[in-house]
Amino acid sequence: MNPPPSTFDPRWLVGLDALAEQSIGLSEPNPRVACRIIAPDGRAFEGHTQHAGGPHAEVMALRAAAAAGADLRGGSAVVTLEPCSHHGRTPPCCEALIEAGLARVLVALPDPNPLVGGRGIARLRAAGIEVQVLPPAHPLAVATRELNLGFLSRMERGRPWVRLKVATSLDGRTALPNGASQWITGAAARTDGHRWRRRAGALLTGIGTVRADDPRLDVRLVPTARQPVRVLLDAQLAVDRQARMLQPPGPVWLYCASDSANTPHRAALQALGVQVLACPAAGAPLRLDLEHLLRDLAAREINELHLEAGPGLNGAFLRAGLVDELLLYLAPTLLGPGAPLAQLDALHALSGGLPLAFTDCSAIGPDLRIRARVLPRPAGGVAAGQ
Amino acid sequence: MNPPPSTFDPRWLVGLDALAEQSIGLSEPNPRVACRIIAPDGRAFEGHTQHAGGPHAEVMALRAAAAAGADLRGGSAVVTLEPCSHHGRTPPCCEALIEAGLARVLVALPDPNPLVGGRGIARLRAAGIEVQVLPPAHPLAVATRELNLGFLSRMERGRPWVRLKVATSLDGRTALPNGASQWITGAAARTDGHRWRRRAGALLTGIGTVRADDPRLDVRLVPTARQPVRVLLDAQLAVDRQARMLQPPGPVWLYCASDSANTPHRAALQALGVQVLACPAAGAPLRLDLEHLLRDLAAREINELHLEAGPGLNGAFLRAGLVDELLLYLAPTLLGPGAPLAQLDALHALSGGLPLAFTDCSAIGPDLRIRARVLPRPAGGVAAGQ
Ligand SMILES: NC(=O)c1ccc[n+]([C@@H]2O[C@H](COP(=O)([O-])OP(=O)(O)OC[C@H]3O[C@@H](n4cnc5c(N)ncnc54)[C@H](OP(=O)(O)O)[C@@H]3O)[C@@H](O)[C@H]2O)c1
Ligand SMILES: NC(=O)c1ccc[n+]([C@@H]2O[C@H](COP(=O)([O-])OP(=O)(O)OC[C@H]3O[C@@H](n4cnc5c(N)ncnc54)[C@H](OP(=O)(O)O)[C@@H]3O)[C@@H](O)[C@H]2O)c1
Ligand SMILES: [Zn+2]
Ligand SMILES: [Zn+2]
Repeated sequence: MNPPPSTFDPRWLVGLDALAEQSIGLSEPNPRVACRIIAPDGRAFEGHTQHAGGPHAEVMALRAAAAAGADLRGGSAVVTLEPCSHHGRTPPCCEALIEAGLARVLVALPDPNPLVGGRGIARLRAAGIEVQVLPPAHPLAVATRELNLGFLSRMERGRPWVRLKVATSLDGRTALPNGASQWITGAAARTDGHRWRRRAGALLTGIGTVRADDPRLDVRLVPTARQPVRVLLDAQLAVDRQARMLQPPGPVWLYCASDSANTPHRAALQALGVQVLACPAAGAPLRLDLEHLLRDLAAREINELHLEAGPGLNGAFLRAGLVDELLLYLAPTLLGPGAPLAQLDALHALSGGLPLAFTDCSAIGPDLRIRARVLPRPAGGVAAGQ
Repeated sequence: MNPPPSTFDPRWLVGLDALAEQSIGLSEPNPRVACRIIAPDGRAFEGHTQHAGGPHAEVMALRAAAAAGADLRGGSAVVTLEPCSHHGRTPPCCEALIEAGLARVLVALPDPNPLVGGRGIARLRAAGIEVQVLPPAHPLAVATRELNLGFLSRMERGRPWVRLKVATSLDGRTALPNGASQWITGAAARTDGHRWRRRAGALLTGIGTVRADDPRLDVRLVPTARQPVRVLLDAQLAVDRQARMLQPPGPVWLYCASDSANTPHRAALQALGVQVLACPAAGAPLRLDLEHLLRDLAAREINELHLEAGPGLNGAFLRAGLVDELLLYLAPTLLGPGAPLAQLDALHALSGGLPLAFTDCSAIGPDLRIRARVLPRPAGGVAAGQ
C-alpha cells in the first residue's frame, strides 16, 4: 500500500476517531463518522454524524466552514467513512463536497454497504476530486471499523453485531440457586454496563429474566440523547403487563411465536405501546428462531444488539453461533453453587469449547471487565457436544 | 514518620527490590533480602540471601567489599530486612556489620519474628551505629513485605501463606464432566504457573488430582536452584506407588489420617523416599484437619504454600478460611457443564460470597492471569451458607 501522497498532512487525521465516537448514542442507525475540512487558508472545520435524519459529518463540517465564511475551493477533506452518494433521509454528501469546490478527499474506510460501496468515491473522482483511501491496517481505518462494527455487520452479514453482557462471580456464577443475582457486581460496573447499553441499537432480554429481575432495561446511569429499543423474547406471550421494561417511554418490541396470539393480552400490550412481533418457533418447549430474529432486527436497522439475559437465552444464542463478543463483568467473590453463564451442552473433549480471544481486561471499581471476541471454530474442528 | 536523615542518599535504595527477588527459588526458608554497602570512597557493594545455610545478604555484600579491598569504616549500609542478631545456621549479620566499622544502617522492614524483632536494630545501636527504619508505606518497605509474605505469615501467624492456583474456562470450569482438564490453559500460562511454583516452599495437591491427572508437581518449565517440597493429602493412604509426584528426586511429604497405617504400603512408600506424616482427621468421609496441616507445614519451615488441587481440596481450604490469595488462569473458552473452581456450600444471599480484592489482571499468551487476595469477612457479615 502506498502512503497517502504528501498533499495530505498526517496531522489532519489526529483526533478524528474521538470525534466520530461522539456519534455514539446519537446517530443510530447511521454510522458513526467524523469529517474534517481544511480550507486553503489553513483553517480546519469539523463535524460528526447527528441523529438519524439529521446532517451527516460532512454537512456538519461544511456548515461550520460556511458559518466562519471560509472559502473551501481547492481545500481538502478527511472523512472516516466513504461519503454517501445516494439520496437517503438527507441529500448525498458527495454532491455537497463537490459543490464546495474541494480538491482532495481522504477516506479512512470505504462504505461496506454492497449497494453503495465505491460509488461515493467514484462520484467524487468523476467530479475531478483527488481521492485517497487509507490502507485497511491504518489506525484510523481500524478505529473506524471497530466503532462501526454494528453498522458493518448489518451491511455485510444482514444481522446486528451481538454483544452478550453478563455479570459473574470469579467462579462463573450468574445467580444463586434461589435465583438472586442483583447485584453480583458493583455500582461502577453497572454504570459501565449502561455505557455499553447506550451504544446499542437494541437491548434484548428473555422472559426468564423479566420474571426473575423485572429489569427496566434502559439507559439511566449515563446521559444519552436516545433510548435503545427494548426487545423481549417471550414465545408464549406470557409477560405481565406491569413488567417494568414494557412501560413508556421508549419503543418495546416483543417477539412471540406466531401462534401465541392471545388476543386480549396482545391488545392490552399494544395499548401500552408494545410492538408485538411474530417470530417462527419450533420444538417443545417452543424456541424462537434466533437467526430469523436477527435478520428481522437488522431489517429494522439495529446495528449493535446488546444481549442481557439469563443462562437460557445466553446459551441459545451461543449454541446457534450468533454471539460476536462477550462483555463480562467479574465480581471479586466466590459464590459456590449457582446458575452458569450460559446453558451449553456437555463436552467430551476440551477442544470442543467455544473459542474466544480476549481483547481487554480492565478494573472497573472493585470488579474486572473482560472483553472477548468469539472466534470462528477451526475448520475440521470438533463441534459443540462432541 | 520522619524521612531518613540526609546522611542516607535515596539513590542507595534503587534496585534493592529487584536484587532481593534474586533470592526467590534459592533462599527458602530464609527471607528474601538484599543489602547494599556504600564505602566512604563512594563504591557500592551488594548481595542477596543465598541458599539456606549459606551467607545472608549482608555477608555477601561484605565479602564483595573485602574482595575489592574496600575500607568500610564510617560507611553506610541499606538492608531490606532487619539484620539477624541470633546464631542460626550462620553467625549473626549484626556482628559482621559492627566489625566492618559501619557508621549508618538503613533498614527497610523490621524483622517480624516475635523472638527476634528489634533485637538486631538494638544490637547495632548499642554498638554506636546510627539506625534508621523506613516508614511502613515506603515503596521499598512495601516491596519487602510483599516479597516475603510467606516468611512473614510463618513468623506472624504460624502458618504458610496459601496461594490457590487454578485454571478455569471463562465460564468457571476446572474440568469437563468426564474429568478432562489437561490442558484448559495454554503453554504460556503453564510456564507462568511454574514461575509461581518455583517461589513456593511446597506444592500441595490431593489424591483426587493424582488419580485424575497424575501430575509430576515439580518445577521444570523454568530454571530453578531447588525443587519445592511436594505435599500430597491422602487421608486413606491410597495413592499408587507409581504416581509421578512420588518419584525421586525431591522431597515428598504425604499426609494421611493417623489411623491409616496400612503398614506394607507405608513401608513401600517410605522406601521410595516419601515421608509419610500423620494428621488428625475427622468425619465421614475422613477429612484431614487443614489448620493442623498448615501449622505442621510452618513448623517444617514452609513459607509459601502453592495449592494446585481439584474442587474438593480447593473448597475445603476456602471453607476453612485458609486461602490467602487466588492465582487464576482464565482460558478464552466456554466449556459448559463441568467441575467448579471449588466445592462450596450453597448461599442464600449474594452478601454471603467469599470476599476478594483483585490485585492484577495480565495477558499470559492467549489466557488471562487474575490475582486476587482473600479479604477478611466483614464483621457482623453473613457467614458462608447463610
Ligand atoms: N448475572 C447476570 O448478568 C444476569 C443477567 C440477566 C439475568 N440473570 C439471571 O438469569 C436468570 C434467568 O435466566 P433464564 O435463562 O430463565 O432467562 P432468560 O435467558 O432471560 O430467558 C429465557 C427464556 O427465553 C425464552 N426464549 C425464547 N426464545 C428462546 C430460544 N430460542 N431459546 C431459549 N429461550 C428462548 C424462553 O421462554 P419462553 O419459551 O416462555 O419464551 C426461555 O425460558 C435469573 O436468575 C436472573 O437473575 C443474570
Ligand atoms: N483446572 C485446574 O486447575 C485443576 C487443577 C487440579 C485438578 N483439577 C481437576 O480436579 C479434579 C480432581 O478434583 P478432586 O476434588 O477430586 O481432587 P483434589 O481436590 O485434588 O483431592 C480431593 C481429595 O483430597 C482428600 N482430602 C484430604 N483431606 C481433605 C480435606 N480436609 N478436605 C477435602 N479433601 C481432603 C480427599 O480424599 P481422601 O479422603 O481419600 O484423602 C479428597 O477426595 C480432576 O478432574 C482434575 O483434573 C483441575
Ligand atoms: Zn452522507
Ligand atoms: Zn543474617
